[in-house]
Amino acid sequence: MKLKIIKIGGNVINNKEALSSFLEDFSKIKESKILVHGGGKHATEMISKLGLKPKMVNGRRVTDEETLEIVTMVYAGLLNKKITAELQKNNCNAIGLSGVDANIIKAHKRIVKDIDYGFAGDVDAVNSDLIKILIENDLTPVFCAITHDKNGQLLNTNADTIAAELAKGMSKGFEVELIYCFEKLGVLIDVENENSIIENINIKTFLKLKKEGIIAEGMLPKIDNCFDALKNGVTKVVIGKPEVINNKNLKHTTLVL
Amino acid sequence: MKLKIIKIGGNVINNKEALSSFLEDFSKIKESKILVHGGGKHATEMISKLGLKPKMVNGRRVTDEETLEIVTMVYAGLLNKKITAELQKNNCNAIGLSGVDANIIKAHKRIVKDIDYGFAGDVDAVNSDLIKILIENDLTPVFCAITHDKNGQLLNTNADTIAAELAKGMSKGFEVELIYCFEKLGVLIDVENENSIIENINIKTFLKLKKEGIIAEGMLPKIDNCFDALKNGVTKVVIGKPEVINNKNLKHTTLVL
Repeated sequence: MKLKIIKIGGNVINNKEALSSFLEDFSKIKESKILVHGGGKHATEMISKLGLKPKMVNGRRVTDEETLEIVTMVYAGLLNKKITAELQKNNCNAIGLSGVDANIIKAHKRIVKDIDYGFAGDVDAVNSDLIKILIENDLTPVFCAITHDKNGQLLNTNADTIAAELAKGMSKGFEVELIYCFEKLGVLIDVENENSIIENINIKTFLKLKKEGIIAEGMLPKIDNCFDALKNGVTKVVIGKPEVINNKNLKHTTLVL
Repeated sequence: MKLKIIKIGGNVINNKEALSSFLEDFSKIKESKILVHGGGKHATEMISKLGLKPKMVNGRRVTDEETLEIVTMVYAGLLNKKITAELQKNNCNAIGLSGVDANIIKAHKRIVKDIDYGFAGDVDAVNSDLIKILIENDLTPVFCAITHDKNGQLLNTNADTIAAELAKGMSKGFEVELIYCFEKLGVLIDVENENSIIENINIKTFLKLKKEGIIAEGMLPKIDNCFDALKNGVTKVVIGKPEVINNKNLKHTTLVL
């Protein structure tokens, strides 16, 4: 059985029309599907509104106790329920969830090495049996990036990682396609030039592109994550614009082993 | 099959130790169970923190668009996930939900008569089949008081009403006991005197107490709701302190038809 796991980030969520249009497209997908959403920009705005300063190190959020409360409010409350309500309007039977719910995603507080990221979660386990039950009942899970440690502690977790871990976990019972939607057509040789898209990457070409420094910086951990998912049973990973989910003619990057 | 539906309000939620202690007790309940929580005081605090003024008419919140976003963040995000994480810690397999999720509680924006309550929701329908599936999979649903109109609009709904509507809906397949936890021992003849508790109320004594003005003001709509639930299949309604859920010796008010 086929399952599409689609991750959307700030570029879709921050624009009301873009989000509506995406959710309409998403609702039309006939196969079983899971949506994973970020929302960092909304969280940063709320942190500022509450008179606090967003704390970032190397582009990653440092989640102190106050920040954790705010990201939980924004991701699990506002964004998750708004997205779920709009999918329901489109007759997609969405169920908004966090990793806490039904213990679906257990994580642990990131071990402090050089930098203390605070209440940042690294994923330990995905309860794929429970997700399977939801899907079998024609529900579409919608995940925000909040998890827990099963000891009462909420944890702020990277949404890309949530998507990859769900994809790996679900690949036991499903033929999983993982789709990362972002603002570019796909992986570009020159980030300023959409014509420089690399349409197909396999493990061999990936290693070559890495060696040549073409895939570097922020893109490197993302692609590493994708190949980790592929090595753990995921059939295919797609990186592209949100419109790629129902427009096969739109150029995108496909990753396979 | 027995099902307990328990509603907690501000007096439990606002006190960290009281909440922990309640959630420990709740986790020990062996029968199938559902938790419904309010959180008005937290929402009021967040509204003030964000520099807005809470709007109330006749003790009821007027939910404008900004207020709706804040109550969605506080109820569906912060409180629902904190409570769910703590139940998970106590090995209660909780799943935090709003009425939006899986379209479990469909409502409509309250019709404006004398007062415009804004995005306040009045309940139309409860999807008891889906809740039954969750319970059959040993999950314990935890509901916040956010619903939707199935047309993309989130709605702020009274938590007492959510509990009563869930109880009515679930009474088709279950023997439902509805328990309202609040700060007093139960329904009191003299609100200042806990010794004046009325331990049993049936429809006949209720009408008498109403006529005599003993049950009046804020308590009247609450008790009206309870009898509405009883008339719609709920077996028993209990009103008492949070400790009543696992201490049968603690005095409380029991309502039956």
